[in-house]
Amino acid sequence: MSKPLDYENLNKNIKKCQYAVRGELYLRASELQKEGKKIIFTNVGNPHALGQKPLTFPRQVIALCQAPFLLDDPNVGLVFPADAIARAKHYLTLASGGLGAYSDSRGVPGIRKDVADFIERRDGYPSDPELIFLTDGASKGVMQMLNAVINGASDGILVPVPQYPLYSATIALLGGSLVPYYLEETANWGLDIVNLRQSVAQARSQGITVRAMVIINPGNPTGQCLSVANLREVLNFCYQNNLALLADEVYQQNIYQDERPFISARKVLMDMGSPISKELQLVSFHTISKGYWGECGQRGGYFEMTNISPKAVEEIYKVASISLSPNVPAQILMGIMVNPPKPGDISYDRYARESKGVLESLRKRAQLMTDGFNSCRNVVCNFTEGAMYSFPQLRLPPKAVEAANKAGKVPDVFYCLKLLEATGISTVPGSGFGQKDGVFHLRTTILPAEEDMPAIMDSFKKFNDEFMEQYEDHKGYSRM
Amino acid sequence: MSKPLDYENLNKNIKKCQYAVRGELYLRASELQKEGKKIIFTNVGNPHALGQKPLTFPRQVIALCQAPFLLDDPNVGLVFPADAIARAKHYLTLASGGLGAYSDSRGVPGIRKDVADFIERRDGYPSDPELIFLTDGASKGVMQMLNAVINGASDGILVPVPQYPLYSATIALLGGSLVPYYLEETANWGLDIVNLRQSVAQARSQGITVRAMVIINPGNPTGQCLSVANLREVLNFCYQNNLALLADEVYQQNIYQDERPFISARKVLMDMGSPISKELQLVSFHTISKGYWGECGQRGGYFEMTNISPKAVEEIYKVASISLSPNVPAQILMGIMVNPPKPGDISYDRYARESKGVLESLRKRAQLMTDGFNSCRNVVCNFTEGAMYSFPQLRLPPKAVEAANKAGKVPDVFYCLKLLEATGISTVPGSGFGQKDGVFHLRTTILPAEEDMPAIMDSFKKFNDEFMEQYEDHKGYSRM
Repeated sequence: MSKPLDYENLNKNIKKCQYAVRGELYLRASELQKEGKKIIFTNVGNPHALGQKPLTFPRQVIALCQAPFLLDDPNVGLVFPADAIARAKHYLTLASGGLGAYSDSRGVPGIRKDVADFIERRDGYPSDPELIFLTDGASKGVMQMLNAVINGASDGILVPVPQYPLYSATIALLGGSLVPYYLEETANWGLDIVNLRQSVAQARSQGITVRAMVIINPGNPTGQCLSVANLREVLNFCYQNNLALLADEVYQQNIYQDERPFISARKVLMDMGSPISKELQLVSFHTISKGYWGECGQRGGYFEMTNISPKAVEEIYKVASISLSPNVPAQILMGIMVNPPKPGDISYDRYARESKGVLESLRKRAQLMTDGFNSCRNVVCNFTEGAMYSFPQLRLPPKAVEAANKAGKVPDVFYCLKLLEATGISTVPGSGFGQKDGVFHLRTTILPAEEDMPAIMDSFKKFNDEFMEQYEDHKGYSRM
Repeated sequence: MSKPLDYENLNKNIKKCQYAVRGELYLRASELQKEGKKIIFTNVGNPHALGQKPLTFPRQVIALCQAPFLLDDPNVGLVFPADAIARAKHYLTLASGGLGAYSDSRGVPGIRKDVADFIERRDGYPSDPELIFLTDGASKGVMQMLNAVINGASDGILVPVPQYPLYSATIALLGGSLVPYYLEETANWGLDIVNLRQSVAQARSQGITVRAMVIINPGNPTGQCLSVANLREVLNFCYQNNLALLADEVYQQNIYQDERPFISARKVLMDMGSPISKELQLVSFHTISKGYWGECGQRGGYFEMTNISPKAVEEIYKVASISLSPNVPAQILMGIMVNPPKPGDISYDRYARESKGVLESLRKRAQLMTDGFNSCRNVVCNFTEGAMYSFPQLRLPPKAVEAANKAGKVPDVFYCLKLLEATGISTVPGSGFGQKDGVFHLRTTILPAEEDMPAIMDSFKKFNDEFMEQYEDHKGYSRM
C-alpha cells in the first residue's frame, strides 16, 4: 500500500509545477561540480556567488546589530566607523528585542516608515507604511499576493512569456490558471497591448476570470525597460478589465542605458490622476537581492499595496502572522538600502564608490555579453537594457531539433546540456521561461566577473560554432 | 463592481483561517501600547522581546560572517575571541559566496551534515544529510510538509487539541481538514490512544482520508513531555493507520523536570526496529527560535525526513527551490546550535554558563507561574514540564459566561481582554488553541524576566480575584 508521503500521494499541484532555474540543468551542473568540473553558475541571479563583494557599510551595521555587546566595547571604534555604530544603535532601538526577537509580522514599523519615505522620494507621491509589508525576499511577497488572489482553477493571472518561472510555478502550486501574454522579441521584448487583449479574450472564452496581471520591469529574463507610454497602456488595460497589477520591480536599480530609465508603475499611476489613481489595485515588489547590493542569501524584500482596503490588508496581515515575522536582519538591511549614507557621512564616499563600481561593471558586462552572443552564428540577442540577464535566441538547425527529439529532450535543453558539458557554463533553457513555438533561447546572467567575460564568451562561441557545424545542413534554420 | 483584491474576492481559505497568537488580543494590546500603556507581551514565545540576552558566541560568529573584511583586520582579535574567528572562516568556506549568496535550496550542504551529526549524537542512530532541509524557521518547514500532504478537503490531519494554531491555520489555508484529538487535561495533558482511534473513525465516517498526525512534544500550549511508552503507542498507531507522523520537537531543549526527559520520536522509532523503523514516514522539526537560544527573529530551522523516498524528496526540493533558499545567516546559526563550543574551546565556559543560566531561570519561572496560577481562585494549572507556556484552566462562573455572551465574545476572550485592560498582560485565550466545550483557558509564556514574575503573578491574582468577585454567584462554576 502506498504511504502518505510517497510520490503518488503527494499534492498534485506540487507535481505539476516546474522551476527551471533550479531544474534539470542546475541539477546536472551540481553533479558535474561534485565530480570536480569547474562550473560557471549563470543560471540564477546570484551575484555574490560569482565573486561580487558585499557593500561595506550595510555589512558593518548588521554585524554590529548582531553583536550589540560590541557597542559598549572600548575598541569598537578601531574596527567600525562611527556612522555604522550610530546606525546600529538606531536599528536596535527600532527593533526592540534586537535581531533575536520576532518583529511585527509586517516588519519593524520604523523600517516600513523608511521604505515609505524612499518610495515618496523616488516617485514624488506619499506612501503609507501601513500598506508596506517586509518579506523574506521578494519571492515570498509574490507568493503571498498570488495566494490572496487565487481561489481555484477558474482564476487566471496574466503572465508575460517569456517570464521568470516563480510566477508559473507559484500559480501551479496554488491551483490557479496562468494566462500567457507574449512579449515581442523583434520589438526589443516590448509589451504589445493587442496581445494582452487577445490573451484575456481567449482566457474568458475558456471560463477563466482573469484577476491580475504581472509585469516584470526591468524584464526577467528579457532585460527590457518599459516606457512610460507602455506602462500607461498597461495601467489603463488593467483598469478597463478590472485586474490588479502585480509589478515585479526588483531590478529597478539595474539599468544599463540612459534612454529608458526605470520608472515605477506607481509613479505612472499617480501621474495619471483620478479616477484610475484612486481605484486601480497595484502591488509592487522590491528586494535587497538585486541592484548593486545583490544580498540574495539574506532574504529581504518588501511589497507596497496601493488602493487595497484595510479589510483586505488585514487578511493579508493575518496570513503573514502565521509565519510570525520575516527575518529581522534582512529587514534592517532593507532599511539601510532605502536610506543609505548621505553626502557628508563618514561612510558616504566608500558606499557611493562601491555602488557605482558594481553598476558600471554590470553595464560593461551587459554590453560584452550582448556583443558576444551577436557575434556567434545563428544567435541573435537583444541588448540587456536592465536587470541581470541575457536572453539570446538560438536558431537551431532542423538536424539539431531532430537530434534533440531523438534524445527525448526539448531542443534548447539539448543545446544547454551540451553547452554545460563542453564549457561548464550553466544556463537555463528558454523553454523554462516560455517562448513561441519553434523558437529557442537560453538565459544567462551577466554576472560573471568582468575580467572573466571575454574568456567565457570565447568558450561559448567555440562551442556554438562546433554545435552548429555538427548539425547545420546549410539549407535552413528554425524559424524566427 | 468589486475588485480582485477586495475582501469579498480574496481566497476563501485565507478568510477562513485563524491565528489567535496574533489575533484580537494581540491587536488590542498593540493599540494599548501605542496609547502609552505598558504591555507585557506573553502572547508569543519570543524570549528576546522580554529581555533574554542572545548567547554571545553565536552572535560573534555571525557578526564576523556578516563582516568578512574584519577577518583581515589586525585589530579583530581585540574584539573577537580566536575560536569565533576560526568558526566564521569555517562557515565562509562552507557557504561559498558568503551570506549574500543564495545557498542550495535545501540549505548549505556542510551545515546539513552538521545537523545530521547532531541527530546521530542525540539519538544514537545515523542520520542522512540528504533528508535534512534547512528552513526559515520551523513554521516554514511545517507549512512545506502540510502542503505536500494535503490535496484537498478530503485529506485530514490529526492535530492535538489544544494545539499551536500554526497547524489549524495552515490546514485551513491549504484547504485540508483538521481532525482533532483531545489531550487529557486531568492526566497532565497526556495523549490517550483511545481518543485517537475515535477521532480517526469519526473522520473516516465523514469521508476523510486521514494522512498524517501531528504531535507537539514538549507540548504547546500544554507543556507536557511525552513518555517513551506514549510515543511507542503513537508510532504504532500511525503505522497501523498508514499515517505519516509530523513531530514538532522545537522545544526539545526546554525541559523543566527530570522524570521525563525529551526523547525524540525518531529515536523511539529506531529503537522499535524493523519493520516499523524502516517503513513509518516521520518528519521532525527543530528551530533556533526556542531552547536557550530563543533566536526567533533570525528565522532558522530544519526538518528531517525518515522513510521518505528519493522521488518524493525531489518534489519537496523542487518546491523549496521556488523560494531559492532559506536565509543564510540563520543557517549558520543553526550550524552553531548543533555544534556548539566544546570543553577546552576558548568560548566554551561562557557558552555553557549562559545556556545554563537561561534554562535554570526558565525552570524557576515555570514553577513560579504554575504555583501562582494554582494559588488563584477558580484557576487550576498543570505544571509546565517543558516548552515555554503555562495553560491554566479558568473556571468561569455562569454570570461571567453570560456577560461574555452579551458582549458577543467567547468567554475566555472576554476574560483575557479584561485582564489585558486591567494589567497590561497580553495572553491568548484558550479558544485560540481549541478546548473541550464549556472549558476555558488562557495561554501565557513563562518568559517574563524572573525578577518580574512575582509582581506579574500578583497583578494577575488581584485581577482574577476582582473578576471572580464580580461574576461569582457562589452557586456553581463552569464544568471542568
